[in-house]
Amino acid sequence: MTDFNFISADDVDDVEKLAQEVLEIKKDPFRWKYLGQNKTLVLVFLNSSLRTRLSTQKAALNLGMNAIVLNLGQDSWNMEFADGVIMKGNTAEHIKEGAAVISEYADIIALRSFPSLTDRTKDYQEFILNQFVKYSSVPVVNMESATVHPLQSLTDLATIREFTQKKRPKVVLTWVPHIKPLPQCVSNSFAQWMNRADVEFVIANPEGYNLSKEFTGDAQVFHTQREAFKNADFIYAKNWSSYEDYGKVLKEDFSWLVTPGKMALTNQAKFMHCLPVRRNVVVADEVLDSDSSIVIRQAGNREWAAQAVIRRILEKRV
Amino acid sequence: MTDFNFISADDVDDVEKLAQEVLEIKKDPFRWKYLGQNKTLVLVFLNSSLRTRLSTQKAALNLGMNAIVLNLGQDSWNMEFADGVIMKGNTAEHIKEGAAVISEYADIIALRSFPSLTDRTKDYQEFILNQFVKYSSVPVVNMESATVHPLQSLTDLATIREFTQKKRPKVVLTWVPHIKPLPQCVSNSFAQWMNRADVEFVIANPEGYNLSKEFTGDAQVFHTQREAFKNADFIYAKNWSSYEDYGKVLKEDFSWLVTPGKMALTNQAKFMHCLPVRRNVVVADEVLDSDSSIVIRQAGNREWAAQAVIRRILEKRV
Amino acid sequence: MTDFNFISADDVDDVEKLAQEVLEIKKDPFRWKYLGQNKTLVLVFLNSSLRTRLSTQKAALNLGMNAIVLNLGQDSWNMEFADGVIMKGNTAEHIKEGAAVISEYADIIALRSFPSLTDRTKDYQEFILNQFVKYSSVPVVNMESATVHPLQSLTDLATIREFTQKKRPKVVLTWVPHIKPLPQCVSNSFAQWMNRADVEFVIANPEGYNLSKEFTGDAQVFHTQREAFKNADFIYAKNWSSYEDYGKVLKEDFSWLVTPGKMALTNQAKFMHCLPVRRNVVVADEVLDSDSSIVIRQAGNREWAAQAVIRRILEKRV
Repeated sequence: MTDFNFISADDVDDVEKLAQEVLEIKKDPFRWKYLGQNKTLVLVFLNSSLRTRLSTQKAALNLGMNAIVLNLGQDSWNMEFADGVIMKGNTAEHIKEGAAVISEYADIIALRSFPSLTDRTKDYQEFILNQFVKYSSVPVVNMESATVHPLQSLTDLATIREFTQKKRPKVVLTWVPHIKPLPQCVSNSFAQWMNRADVEFVIANPEGYNLSKEFTGDAQVFHTQREAFKNADFIYAKNWSSYEDYGKVLKEDFSWLVTPGKMALTNQAKFMHCLPVRRNVVVADEVLDSDSSIVIRQAGNREWAAQAVIRRILEKRV
Repeated sequence: MTDFNFISADDVDDVEKLAQEVLEIKKDPFRWKYLGQNKTLVLVFLNSSLRTRLSTQKAALNLGMNAIVLNLGQDSWNMEFADGVIMKGNTAEHIKEGAAVISEYADIIALRSFPSLTDRTKDYQEFILNQFVKYSSVPVVNMESATVHPLQSLTDLATIREFTQKKRPKVVLTWVPHIKPLPQCVSNSFAQWMNRADVEFVIANPEGYNLSKEFTGDAQVFHTQREAFKNADFIYAKNWSSYEDYGKVLKEDFSWLVTPGKMALTNQAKFMHCLPVRRNVVVADEVLDSDSSIVIRQAGNREWAAQAVIRRILEKRV
Repeated sequence: MTDFNFISADDVDDVEKLAQEVLEIKKDPFRWKYLGQNKTLVLVFLNSSLRTRLSTQKAALNLGMNAIVLNLGQDSWNMEFADGVIMKGNTAEHIKEGAAVISEYADIIALRSFPSLTDRTKDYQEFILNQFVKYSSVPVVNMESATVHPLQSLTDLATIREFTQKKRPKVVLTWVPHIKPLPQCVSNSFAQWMNRADVEFVIANPEGYNLSKEFTGDAQVFHTQREAFKNADFIYAKNWSSYEDYGKVLKEDFSWLVTPGKMALTNQAKFMHCLPVRRNVVVADEVLDSDSSIVIRQAGNREWAAQAVIRRILEKRV
């Protein structure tokens, strides 16, 4: 375990400053190409990825690094994360060796590892990520873990700053419907970053879907979208499964779909989503295809956010 | 959607001129390495690939670009291509977002997407490819789609030029046997390119296997190999399933195997195939292992063909 | 088939000299970056890999080469290795074309192909590797085949030299338990290299687990660990299935686990293992977590070993 990890907002002094660095890099992405010469980022995926996979590779290449992708399980075998085990099961390598060995070949490791959604304690202790960090000898970048997705949240904040001149815009995180249980990590993380940013932040979700206070802090929670959307400058939509009744979809309720009618309640808000998004389940085509949607620009900013973080690690500033 | 796509022969003014560029690049592959500096090709595979995967990556690297591979489905999730859908099924992301987002990270996208072989209308409308192109904001290179395989056809024409001094060689596309239904795309595409090249082009296939007139145009079609092979300078073998009885293998007929006896009917023709090839089903060992076979050189030329196309796109000449 | 392959110790004049080159490269890895300019290593995997996958890519990049990974089967399709076959089965491409075509895009090919563990004759003839080498037109590096793993063995020898000043250290290869049948290749290969190195080399394995004399030569074989471990400077642990009763696990016997008590019999020996290792099946946590374990440094040396071999090939010295 080293300093210079990027695991969550807790690793960042000033989230607004880092967001400004994201936008600075966007203007001149290749200016720091000398920083990564002869250095290698190894991207380790325990789960699927599209945006994160591409944008994080690009970020490394923009900085002059090599980027090597490892799809654990698919390319190699399953890892054991528990200590003291007699490994007679289906895990062939312990994370003690796995993380230490990957560290031998990497200057920075980026890791994606989703939650189980069955064991809340283990998930919220970030058991897998922490074991990985503990046994790595190089900095680790979190590419989405059991409870947070900081590269996404940094992107989100930078995108908000890109699209508003307001000093203190109103930002609404709204729960939206989905067809299967999803992690809370994007929403937790967004709340964590918004609470540290200079915005007015509120949350809208149905009863039973309150997120952990650990992440939402004192943010006001509404149980209807109508009230929350009033005067909003940004609507950030995301589904999550229940934190209280852990990992469960409480009932099929598609009335929380984001529609043009709901967007009309806002202050001409921009619509944001981390993607992938299920059209007409999460949000109506009419919203996503309108000028108020900034989801593609938001996704594009993932590259500069990853680059800002990796740059700081290369400069030993995280 | 942009200009500068490479989707089929329709995107090329003069196929012979482009084929000459392929051979020109082969002589000095690294001369244009400055063109791709800080640019990225993202290769998106919805299906398996060996030659295309390797040769297209190499082409990008030869031009100084980064090459990033994305195995859709395997590395990420399934895409929805239909518009207006309520996405409650097994597709997690719509191509509207998918193609637009990949475009954020790519300067050029290369796409492989095979036909269904069940829905001829959709396949021949190039539904998937066209949706992808429509929602991309950067140039798209077709690495084999439902109906055509233009990087292969360009390679084929360049290879013909490499192996003959004749102004107007006789080129025969012959159907050959196979054990399962294959797409028509390589054959369609070859016909399309040959019809625009300075060659005498004829086709041999069993009854029921006529290709679409859209691609074969006025090319003469024989229903025996014997007559077609006469005086041929190049025998181009390829299996395809029926276009008329769409996607079907009409009957097990292994008599169309290319043998030394059939090759003896030609004007010492060179044997060509796009590979992979099933030995002794499509063509006899004796032919494939003889000096008349140029399949390896043909496959090698894939690299230079891809490079010629990408170079034109980088130079905004397609 | 070319000269300059790296298939086994037989391709190396002086194993100790090559091991010194490994340690020389470790001190200054980027010094030979000019050697690989505009050259490409294609890594072909027929089986899973973590260390080999990462370290061999890194080695190529350190030398200025491009590294392209091809997961055969997963990324493309299954290869036919037998000659003269009528290919009506589930193999879509013959190795004659496969290896020749990959050679068109590669300056060096690295191949991983595990044994069947069912057909000893075919495995020990190195049928797949040899077919691949036969039909390749560029040098082939063995990334672990049916009977040997020379990049691992070279690493092992270099690691031994790194950790001892003794002219002639005592090195013990000991069989250890496992839960399923594993190849003999790491052990065969280690024996082959140790027999050519300047070490005192002995083997410990239960009755029925004697390795092939082809690899162990005149090395003394003990059927207890106790006697073999005496005065050992290095304990190299590895499981293998039976060579005599080919590919079988003869009985569940976990008494061969390497424990602190057994390590106490040695001359403060260093513990080595090629990894992945099943903890508390192969070796006790107490040994692996102690200072005597050098498995991580050993794994790290894989990068320099691969680089030493590729450097020699680029310099046409193998």
